[in-house]
Amino acid sequence: MASATLDVVGIGNAIVDILAHTDDGFLLREGLQKGSMTLIDAERSNALYEKIGPAVECSGGSAANTLAGIAALGGRAGYIGKVADDEFGRLFRHDIRAAGVAFETPAALDGAPTARSLVLVTPDAQRTMNTYLGISVELGPEDVEPGVIAEASITYLEGYLWDLPRAKEAFRQALAIAHRNGRRVALTLSDAFCVERSREEFLDLVERHVDILFANEAEIASLYQVTGFDEALQKVRGHCEIAALTRSEKGAVIVGNDEIHIVDAANIGPVVDTTGAGDLFASGFLYGLSHGFDLARSGRLGALAAAEVIGHLGARPEVPLAPFIEQSAL
Amino acid sequence: MASATLDVVGIGNAIVDILAHTDDGFLLREGLQKGSMTLIDAERSNALYEKIGPAVECSGGSAANTLAGIAALGGRAGYIGKVADDEFGRLFRHDIRAAGVAFETPAALDGAPTARSLVLVTPDAQRTMNTYLGISVELGPEDVEPGVIAEASITYLEGYLWDLPRAKEAFRQALAIAHRNGRRVALTLSDAFCVERSREEFLDLVERHVDILFANEAEIASLYQVTGFDEALQKVRGHCEIAALTRSEKGAVIVGNDEIHIVDAANIGPVVDTTGAGDLFASGFLYGLSHGFDLARSGRLGALAAAEVIGHLGARPEVPLAPFIEQSAL
Repeated sequence: MASATLDVVGIGNAIVDILAHTDDGFLLREGLQKGSMTLIDAERSNALYEKIGPAVECSGGSAANTLAGIAALGGRAGYIGKVADDEFGRLFRHDIRAAGVAFETPAALDGAPTARSLVLVTPDAQRTMNTYLGISVELGPEDVEPGVIAEASITYLEGYLWDLPRAKEAFRQALAIAHRNGRRVALTLSDAFCVERSREEFLDLVERHVDILFANEAEIASLYQVTGFDEALQKVRGHCEIAALTRSEKGAVIVGNDEIHIVDAANIGPVVDTTGAGDLFASGFLYGLSHGFDLARSGRLGALAAAEVIGHLGARPEVPLAPFIEQSAL
Repeated sequence: MASATLDVVGIGNAIVDILAHTDDGFLLREGLQKGSMTLIDAERSNALYEKIGPAVECSGGSAANTLAGIAALGGRAGYIGKVADDEFGRLFRHDIRAAGVAFETPAALDGAPTARSLVLVTPDAQRTMNTYLGISVELGPEDVEPGVIAEASITYLEGYLWDLPRAKEAFRQALAIAHRNGRRVALTLSDAFCVERSREEFLDLVERHVDILFANEAEIASLYQVTGFDEALQKVRGHCEIAALTRSEKGAVIVGNDEIHIVDAANIGPVVDTTGAGDLFASGFLYGLSHGFDLARSGRLGALAAAEVIGHLGARPEVPLAPFIEQSAL
């Protein structure tokens, strides 16, 4: 096996976030479930946008945020995702490259616009996402550069891709290339509703194909159709080589063969916006694994990276995260 | 004279701000003068964008920020400016309307893209702007709705318009309509370099056409080609019905016929980003004048609105400003 030239390559929906403050009443009136991600069409996206207040735009996308975090840690990061040849596409490309992530997927020259997510931030710092996938649904196997996957120590995949037939094909292809080259594959379940839509397939993926699983409490409970966290934990043991289960302010539980580690949440400061907490936990954890850190230290690095991103508005780190690497060893 | 249905209508360059953090070394290497606004072409805009780090986008434009502030105070506000039929144009329109400002100028269906300004924020909270005017240069007299100007108590014009031949025509037309209808016209000098480019014309405007002048220290010194603030102050007395001269942390000096008022800066909290301080001072001052407040109270309202906007990143208020109205009476 050749040595890896990338630590992690991620595949995901390339999305521009449109962030606006709102209140619980608005979510209620619009029938939006707080904290969830809902897929919406262009028409609903436009109608909802008309109703929200002044907004701020920045690059997002779950896996893209994770890779930006890996680059902020000093890791070698690559990204695969589909944007359109429009202003949002250009700003997505600018931001991820400016963050230090290699991104070469060509823009689609026609079709739908670049994907956007209306991120509604309530006063309790929770975010409710309404995503119009636009051109990102055109991501397909032809966008998966075999050389890039083969040269990455870990390939990281968004569960969100499972909502799209061509992206699912791209996902399966990346998985096959990675394993053929002796690399590891990581998956995040992304969202409890996303799990619900494809539970059987996710169960098969987790048990037979994926080496590293990321899930929060709602997602892992949805996968195994249980209600308590401990129940889910018992199910996941033995089903997956490594699982990182995140629990918001309760920290995370890391499961790996016979090992089990409790990682407390890092307490850095006040919580401003929880957007990106899971994405950045994955940054730290994957950076750790790809650098040979043990599970506990990788988990601590994840917790530190997550703590930075919830301290400000937006889902990508605002400062270099490399100082956390030493801290995670303690 | 019919009673006004709008307190203030503003005419300006409709711009989307692209905000990124940078340092003094970058400004030096790129030959950028800290705190200034430089006009750049599309090519330079793209080249500079390539060099800056990850960014955040939000609606800007000096007069547009001022009108958003007037709406945040509860005033009746309108705006005239040119955007393209592109994503930045749509987000500019969304944000200004969502802020409560009437905005009906039709988008240009072809030509250059919506204007954008690369706003480089240094650690000292100063911002250095690099503006590609794009389609905003197409703003012309045909965009100035005579009915809107006639029905606004005050028409507010950006000095920046003076850099563009067709916008200058639009400016002159708005001025004539306003005065024909017994309304007042306000002008901000916008930028010291802008003043330098058209000094003779600005002197004529200030002395003969404009009722309310806004300028900061550098701008008023450039207008009268003097070095000290007091010298400029002596020049401006008698040249203009009302002048509001802003001095950053030193507050403002308001001149009106025989009156002269010293308005101290409002101290609300730490300064995060000075972008929009002058724009929001104008919001408070114009809201005051259009509601019959005296000069001192109008100035205090300006200082309060400015203090809110420098407390966070971005040039538009984040909270309703109406509570300041009562405070300004004290």
